Amino acid sequence: MPNNASIFLPIRLGELAHRLDATVEGDPETFIHGIAPLAAAGAGDLSFITDARYAPAASSTRAAALLVGRDFALAAGCQAALLRCADPSLALARALSILRPTPRPAPGIHPAACVDASAEIGPGAYIGPYAVVGPHCRLGPDAVLHPHVVLYEGVTVGRNFLAHAHAVVREGTRIGDDVILQPGVVLGGDGFGFARQSDGRHAKIPQTGTVVIGDRVEIQANSCVDRATLGATVIGAGSKMDNLAQVAHNCQLGENVILCAQVGLAGSTNVGDGAVLAGQAGVAGHCTIGAGAIITAQSGTHGDLAAGGMYSGSPAFDHRQWLRSTAAFAKLGELHRTVRELAQAVRKLQGGC
Amino acid sequence: MPNNASIFLPIRLGELAHRLDATVEGDPETFIHGIAPLAAAGAGDLSFITDARYAPAASSTRAAALLVGRDFALAAGCQAALLRCADPSLALARALSILRPTPRPAPGIHPAACVDASAEIGPGAYIGPYAVVGPHCRLGPDAVLHPHVVLYEGVTVGRNFLAHAHAVVREGTRIGDDVILQPGVVLGGDGFGFARQSDGRHAKIPQTGTVVIGDRVEIQANSCVDRATLGATVIGAGSKMDNLAQVAHNCQLGENVILCAQVGLAGSTNVGDGAVLAGQAGVAGHCTIGAGAIITAQSGTHGDLAAGGMYSGSPAFDHRQWLRSTAAFAKLGELHRTVRELAQAVRKLQGGC
Amino acid sequence: MPNNASIFLPIRLGELAHRLDATVEGDPETFIHGIAPLAAAGAGDLSFITDARYAPAASSTRAAALLVGRDFALAAGCQAALLRCADPSLALARALSILRPTPRPAPGIHPAACVDASAEIGPGAYIGPYAVVGPHCRLGPDAVLHPHVVLYEGVTVGRNFLAHAHAVVREGTRIGDDVILQPGVVLGGDGFGFARQSDGRHAKIPQTGTVVIGDRVEIQANSCVDRATLGATVIGAGSKMDNLAQVAHNCQLGENVILCAQVGLAGSTNVGDGAVLAGQAGVAGHCTIGAGAIITAQSGTHGDLAAGGMYSGSPAFDHRQWLRSTAAFAKLGELHRTVRELAQAVRKLQGGC
Repeated sequence: MPNNASIFLPIRLGELAHRLDATVEGDPETFIHGIAPLAAAGAGDLSFITDARYAPAASSTRAAALLVGRDFALAAGCQAALLRCADPSLALARALSILRPTPRPAPGIHPAACVDASAEIGPGAYIGPYAVVGPHCRLGPDAVLHPHVVLYEGVTVGRNFLAHAHAVVREGTRIGDDVILQPGVVLGGDGFGFARQSDGRHAKIPQTGTVVIGDRVEIQANSCVDRATLGATVIGAGSKMDNLAQVAHNCQLGENVILCAQVGLAGSTNVGDGAVLAGQAGVAGHCTIGAGAIITAQSGTHGDLAAGGMYSGSPAFDHRQWLRSTAAFAKLGELHRTVRELAQAVRKLQGGC
Repeated sequence: MPNNASIFLPIRLGELAHRLDATVEGDPETFIHGIAPLAAAGAGDLSFITDARYAPAASSTRAAALLVGRDFALAAGCQAALLRCADPSLALARALSILRPTPRPAPGIHPAACVDASAEIGPGAYIGPYAVVGPHCRLGPDAVLHPHVVLYEGVTVGRNFLAHAHAVVREGTRIGDDVILQPGVVLGGDGFGFARQSDGRHAKIPQTGTVVIGDRVEIQANSCVDRATLGATVIGAGSKMDNLAQVAHNCQLGENVILCAQVGLAGSTNVGDGAVLAGQAGVAGHCTIGAGAIITAQSGTHGDLAAGGMYSGSPAFDHRQWLRSTAAFAKLGELHRTVRELAQAVRKLQGGC
Repeated sequence: MPNNASIFLPIRLGELAHRLDATVEGDPETFIHGIAPLAAAGAGDLSFITDARYAPAASSTRAAALLVGRDFALAAGCQAALLRCADPSLALARALSILRPTPRPAPGIHPAACVDASAEIGPGAYIGPYAVVGPHCRLGPDAVLHPHVVLYEGVTVGRNFLAHAHAVVREGTRIGDDVILQPGVVLGGDGFGFARQSDGRHAKIPQTGTVVIGDRVEIQANSCVDRATLGATVIGAGSKMDNLAQVAHNCQLGENVILCAQVGLAGSTNVGDGAVLAGQAGVAGHCTIGAGAIITAQSGTHGDLAAGGMYSGSPAFDHRQWLRSTAAFAKLGELHRTVRELAQAVRKLQGGC
């Protein structure tokens, strides 16, 4: 673990508490110089207990202060000041923003960027070397395009866009406000649409639709959202996609959906608000996943799943029932043997009666 | 759904029917201005019924005309003209090509492209800004290299190549005619070949082979085809790969193979003509998948699979048998309990007899 | 298979044997002109038997010489000279390095590269067109940055770095000696860290940590290693990642770990030295995988796995037990029926007694 305290902006504990809506137990004049996990925290660091399991470790931390919940029971021997707040995870997110505001490149268009004369670029934009902004693109204020970002023709983007190196946005994609693309993201690649000919060849179905990305969406490294065959593939406001995830043509994601790494959605599938698909989960085409549903890691479904449920397995069903099935699965060889012996015993009994 | 009718080229119904080999039921002078799904279609739109399940919706569509099969039974109340054809999916693909021909950048090499003096570029090529064409590359007529495409040394490509932004083709790769690469594709990356030393370190096995891509292959966003250790990794003519799919060194794919999103093939595996691997399916190394075999989503095999079969599960076996097994799996906890009770009953009977 | 003999450097068999620590059975003056698999090898080629299954094919090979193990039993009719060595796989890796040394671009910084004035570039570097090296980067001797490689601010790299086209390394990443990045790799993308607000929105947790890549690490095409929330995500020395693999924020990989294609690790997971995760395997967050453990393809775990074991299934357990369970699974429909019949028989017996 590097000593990265120097990259943080120091702040007084009292001031920090004020900005986090937290109450202080300790000296509000103490300076906080960094943020670190319990074990790594040194003098001057803020640490945090976002999970009750780690509470005992508080007694031996060297941190100057701890972000804890309102009802946190102080560990014996804990020397740290406490910042009590309603939600330590959320407060940690805010504290990191305060102590380490994300660096932003200074506005300006690099001479080695290629911005079409017909593109409209809002004020405050940074456009890095070798970025390409195609004809008739429209970027809202304060866009950051890191090197090698490519926007094809007619892409429209709201305010405060952050696109990392090598993100590619194909023609006609519409992007809302406060959207973040990590490196290598591809938006608007052709959907996987082919019609099988009688000779076995696959005729390409032109993908004439587009992609619509809502406000506050973040899509992480090398993930893909395909353009629709007709109409639009939609990622609803506030949804987040981890690395290497795949959303096929004509999918409709609601708001605040979570797609973890390597999740795959086939074409024309709908995912309701707040649903969570854990790592490597998959959904077949033309399915509906209800709002708030959770699909656990590596699970998959080719049918609809009701809102609010938790589903596991491939194919997926109720998570608790799946837990029982998988527990039994590990003993399946043994079960098989037992049944064979039972059958023998029954035959014997039948013969003997 | 955007009103994107304006991007289509209008055409008379009679002329369209002629070009689609369809028969018209309705006024052939009607102008078609766009194409849209049943529910979204408005006046002047062509819609389509490629799946009998959606036939009832025809009665309420506002579409001007419907692409339907030869034996489609007209829904009561349907006001739309009909275009009857042998294969509505195929006809839809053609209709989209006719009403919305894919835009093609005008020929020309952008001044900010980097094309080696020894490269041979066929007539009609467009090479976008920041594209790199290495020494001794040979491109057939009418190539389109979008911004940031990189061809390493000695890549050869047939006619009508379409490579989207950030596609990378490593040295010596040979590509046929009419090949499409979506953004971020990597062809010819090193195979994952290492020899374990006695000290636990992994010595790199140089990957001295190449990649051969047949005619009419399309590879979609961020997918990878590794170069062979020796010889060539081959993607047969007409095969299609969806996003984030992986083909390892020395695999041999036949013609018209379909690899859906996030499929992975380990090294030296053969896939027969027309096989279909659904999303997130996987095949271990040195396997042979027979022609026309179907592997369903998330399934995997470390053995050979016979031609023409349909396989599911991980490890995969006959799909219908798998359906029975998975149905039973969901009740496995219960089955376990039943067997325990039976064992008890049998012991009791044994004692009693 | 192309005739690629011309790309190899010819060498006398005796000299080759000397450099591979092998003994010759045959004429040491024979010239070796290429390397090819048994079936493809022609006159003048070296071939190899790294797997005893292929030994019978030796009798019909046209290869001039064969790399074989010390105890290889000569196939009747085999005309080839033999190079006997302790480990044919390792010797093959070396032979390929000798006969076909990886071509290296000549040192020099392309005029269309964008190297910040504050970056320190070691001697012998090649930096290709459109590569970007940010402020305060430090590159050791003999770096090769292919076109379009992007290093953000403050990246430090050891000697002999090889980064292929479109690799992206975000700010502050620290990379050791002899590291290879295949095309499209992303190091240091933001971790997938969000705190759920009471209104259902996900607040971004700033990812203020970094990534540390050990010596001799190779990461293949389009794979991703996310930066830590705090501290560092670590890939230990000698570890290798295949294509499209995912390592989340704060993971700690030991030395010589193997992650095959499309493997995914969720946040804060530890993987011990020499562990092997086969294709599409997954590990949930905060798990510990012991040294030398093997997780087979498509398997997954949300718990710790002990060192040295072999694990299969999702969720994963002991591989041998899993083999029994999966064998039984294929017959699960049948087992269900048998149990139903048994239950009936037992009820009858109970009634009859």
